[in-house]
Amino acid sequence: MKLYDIKNDIQTHDTASEVDFSLRATIVSMIGYILDTASVDADKKGFGVKKLNSENRSWVISRMALDLYRLPYKYETIDITTWVNDYGKLLTTRNFFVTDENNCSIFAAVTQWAMIDLSTRRPLDLRNVDEYKRYMCIEQSPINNPIKIAAINPQQTIIHKVAYSDIDFNRHVNSLRYFTLMIDMLPIEFLANTNPIHVEVNFLHESQYGDTLTAGYEQCGSKSLFEIKNSNNIAICRASIEWKN
Amino acid sequence: MKLYDIKNDIQTHDTASEVDFSLRATIVSMIGYILDTASVDADKKGFGVKKLNSENRSWVISRMALDLYRLPYKYETIDITTWVNDYGKLLTTRNFFVTDENNCSIFAAVTQWAMIDLSTRRPLDLRNVDEYKRYMCIEQSPINNPIKIAAINPQQTIIHKVAYSDIDFNRHVNSLRYFTLMIDMLPIEFLANTNPIHVEVNFLHESQYGDTLTAGYEQCGSKSLFEIKNSNNIAICRASIEWKN
Repeated sequence: MKLYDIKNDIQTHDTASEVDFSLRATIVSMIGYILDTASVDADKKGFGVKKLNSENRSWVISRMALDLYRLPYKYETIDITTWVNDYGKLLTTRNFFVTDENNCSIFAAVTQWAMIDLSTRRPLDLRNVDEYKRYMCIEQSPINNPIKIAAINPQQTIIHKVAYSDIDFNRHVNSLRYFTLMIDMLPIEFLANTNPIHVEVNFLHESQYGDTLTAGYEQCGSKSLFEIKNSNNIAICRASIEWKN
Repeated sequence: MKLYDIKNDIQTHDTASEVDFSLRATIVSMIGYILDTASVDADKKGFGVKKLNSENRSWVISRMALDLYRLPYKYETIDITTWVNDYGKLLTTRNFFVTDENNCSIFAAVTQWAMIDLSTRRPLDLRNVDEYKRYMCIEQSPINNPIKIAAINPQQTIIHKVAYSDIDFNRHVNSLRYFTLMIDMLPIEFLANTNPIHVEVNFLHESQYGDTLTAGYEQCGSKSLFEIKNSNNIAICRASIEWKN
């Protein structure tokens, strides 16, 4: 058993939209980088969406916890390490650790994923997935597992009709799009912040093309809380961002 | 003088949001790939935004014409060639040609760019940019130059307030975001289309964080026409998509 699975060097960034006005990678870009690294790692090992989709299965993300110590500046090279260290009936745990060129930690994340049947959209029992066990690493998670986030009392809401560009190959709203919707509700001063943050995200249900979503935002002390609901008032995604000093 | 400048192999795709429900790269992804290739090429030659931004200058795109013969499917590798073959006082012409693994053409584009002073936001005289001339290639443009697009009479409009995620390192709305806004107004059946299309885009003015944009859409026979205006009724971006048989 290996300690780590993959190291992925990413230069931030080649794409104009990956950095913001502060010339740092956005939080959404950082989450995109780690999810891309997860895809590459899983595909290499033969349990990525490349193989799963051909078998009418796919991975969907359920929860995410992350500690962001700092956002890398444009043209910095970052190093992303990912490994899977646990799985049960419904969820498997994939970890990420990101360092800069000086080998300093800038980001750590723990994510939990379900494997779904694309016809029924229901989760499969991971214990029945052949050989998945042999890809488990003994390395512990870098931070605590994601937690369950409670409903919020929004002080502010926006309406978003799910459009073509929100939908990905899984035929549902791409998980990063929820995060973009939430981030865009924050006061811009918060996004110029350079202190560490702790983020928790719960992906609760899927939403499809044409759905009307209501994104709510509540500021509770140092925590920004978010909840996105569909038109049946069902929570699709909840998140919290804690701004540290 | 070389015929071509750069060849860039891109595998579509590693990122979930780069392909749509039809499992093909989106038009916006394709435009993103060529613009990224342009950045890499310009940076390599020492006239990219990496150097320009350090001198308080930047490139901004003015017009774009493209012929899209087909959209590559997920995991296809495409090959992007780019070259600059002309410049005058205000604009320089950068060309793109994209082929698939069978060396078949899938995409050709001509773009025109201005170099701006980041303090005044006004264009600089490219004839005064030292050594730019030596990067000109003799290869002709693969399609006709972009044309001027007229105002439209929208049959449908949407309002979009410019948010944090729309703004790029240039501190204005990223050019791809206008295109996303427009594409999302189209009937979804149009986006499942597999026939060739011809696209023209005019980027007329910048817009900033907090601006309220109105995007208009008019269907004229086989042409989808778009116009995005700011709250002062000034046209920011116009585009047309011609759906061929």
